[in-house]
Amino acid sequence: MADSIRQGNYIILPDPKHPGLTRSVKGLTHEGKHEEIKVVEEKPLTIFLNSTEIVTVMTIGDYPEFLALGFLFNQGMLRSYRLIQRIDYEHELQTVVVRTSEQTDYESKLQKKVRTSGCAVGTVFGDQMELIEGLKLPYLEVKTSWLYNLAKVINLTPSLYLEAGAIHGTVLCQEDKTLVYMEDVGRHNAVDKINGWMKTNNIEPEDKILYTTGRLTSEMILKTALMGIPVLVSRSGFTAWGVEIARQVNLTLIGRMRGKRFVCLAGEERLDRNVSPEGIKDEAQKYQRKGSRNP
Amino acid sequence: MADSIRQGNYIILPDPKHPGLTRSVKGLTHEGKHEEIKVVEEKPLTIFLNSTEIVTVMTIGDYPEFLALGFLFNQGMLRSYRLIQRIDYEHELQTVVVRTSEQTDYESKLQKKVRTSGCAVGTVFGDQMELIEGLKLPYLEVKTSWLYNLAKVINLTPSLYLEAGAIHGTVLCQEDKTLVYMEDVGRHNAVDKINGWMKTNNIEPEDKILYTTGRLTSEMILKTALMGIPVLVSRSGFTAWGVEIARQVNLTLIGRMRGKRFVCLAGEERLDRNVSPEGIKDEAQKYQRKGSRNP
Repeated sequence: MADSIRQGNYIILPDPKHPGLTRSVKGLTHEGKHEEIKVVEEKPLTIFLNSTEIVTVMTIGDYPEFLALGFLFNQGMLRSYRLIQRIDYEHELQTVVVRTSEQTDYESKLQKKVRTSGCAVGTVFGDQMELIEGLKLPYLEVKTSWLYNLAKVINLTPSLYLEAGAIHGTVLCQEDKTLVYMEDVGRHNAVDKINGWMKTNNIEPEDKILYTTGRLTSEMILKTALMGIPVLVSRSGFTAWGVEIARQVNLTLIGRMRGKRFVCLAGEERLDRNVSPEGIKDEAQKYQRKGSRNP
Repeated sequence: MADSIRQGNYIILPDPKHPGLTRSVKGLTHEGKHEEIKVVEEKPLTIFLNSTEIVTVMTIGDYPEFLALGFLFNQGMLRSYRLIQRIDYEHELQTVVVRTSEQTDYESKLQKKVRTSGCAVGTVFGDQMELIEGLKLPYLEVKTSWLYNLAKVINLTPSLYLEAGAIHGTVLCQEDKTLVYMEDVGRHNAVDKINGWMKTNNIEPEDKILYTTGRLTSEMILKTALMGIPVLVSRSGFTAWGVEIARQVNLTLIGRMRGKRFVCLAGEERLDRNVSPEGIKDEAQKYQRKGSRNP
């Protein structure tokens, strides 16, 4: 089994046996049995940009530096990796401080905003929409054989999801190969951790595919577009605005992908249906987890 | 069918045919067919407390006043419904302004926070934990026959989920009766809308049960506790910290509820297993949507 799923492609993959990521708690089942049930950890992590407290996210707790970095880039608060001076993670304080060599645009903007109307929460969203103005993602043709293989490999990869449930996964892929598989209790955190890893390792996004277990909402589309990745695939369904943004930025958007089924709602002209879905098996019941009904 | 699911119990239920809540978009299926696919709407809504901009949430767009009110109460920014003077929803501006007769604690706290460290986002979480300090929810015995009936009724209720997918649902229940069923693209919005409805109608929480399709994360537990509801049930799984908080506040917590199965991880002494799970049918495939594997 291990061979057939070609784990060798992964640079990072889940570590479901890691003791810090799950916990056993006593519970009662529907049959009245007392059992130890495995559940995922969830901890607050506060992200600072220099001396500015930006947000507290709830996370499973792995890769805090990638999470902080990816979050700041995905919110448009950081624009260039060269500015990063140091990233300090304090386990006991549950904080990550990202330090830049000079004050960022965002901090100046934040100070102005605070002076005028009190709080900056509401600006984040507007800033993200501003950032994709005029953005067109690079052209990438996608073979459906890649997508079927990716879905199969990801389903069979040992994960915290299979170990304890209640977690989302996101996988960075290239053609039919899975590269980095991140999981988190916050579905956006998994994407942010991938972004942090990409920025740290100077990974080019233009030939990559992002696979997620989460829904294709506007924020997921925005993040993928800001990361420069031209293809987003999900087991789950779509929102109307997510589809609209995807079409605007030339993002190929494939959802409700389970077994042989999928729906492509943006970029179908870049999709090469090179295999017949007839030969693709339906998923085993145990993998039928998140995501909406099939179309 | 309609009779057997006893829709008559609902005070509010989903309106899946409402034209403003879904949209048909053209897509390509795995079989290469061009089809119209129904997807849910998703729109920004900015919530103000008096003159302070609090947050922009992404929502399906129904019940904006309940959403704003429920959000502010659930964040601890509002403490008493008597203070509310007016709620103004501006459809074109996509804003809701909740006006109180005097400045709230939160606004004073926010001004102080802004002066000291720049932004208030990070305080919200700490405030919620503070609010449940010492909180003990009222004792409520729960019959498993109620839970099985609720799950069945909710599964069979026509919903935006069954119409278009990619949406979460939360249902306020009492014994075996479903009262208010809210759906939203943001899983927390559905809970907030129920809270707004409860506060507006002065509904007592102590004999209620909250059912959600979403995961039982710390924020979901905190919200339920702050609403004063002593029982939370979900199709989905748990996080460790969610379980910890539930035990601390005497919240009965039941998850992974699908067909005959469930796991109770907090308050099992308040659970009356009055029916044998043997007689309960497994769910039809079409309802096997969100949530983790069965235990």
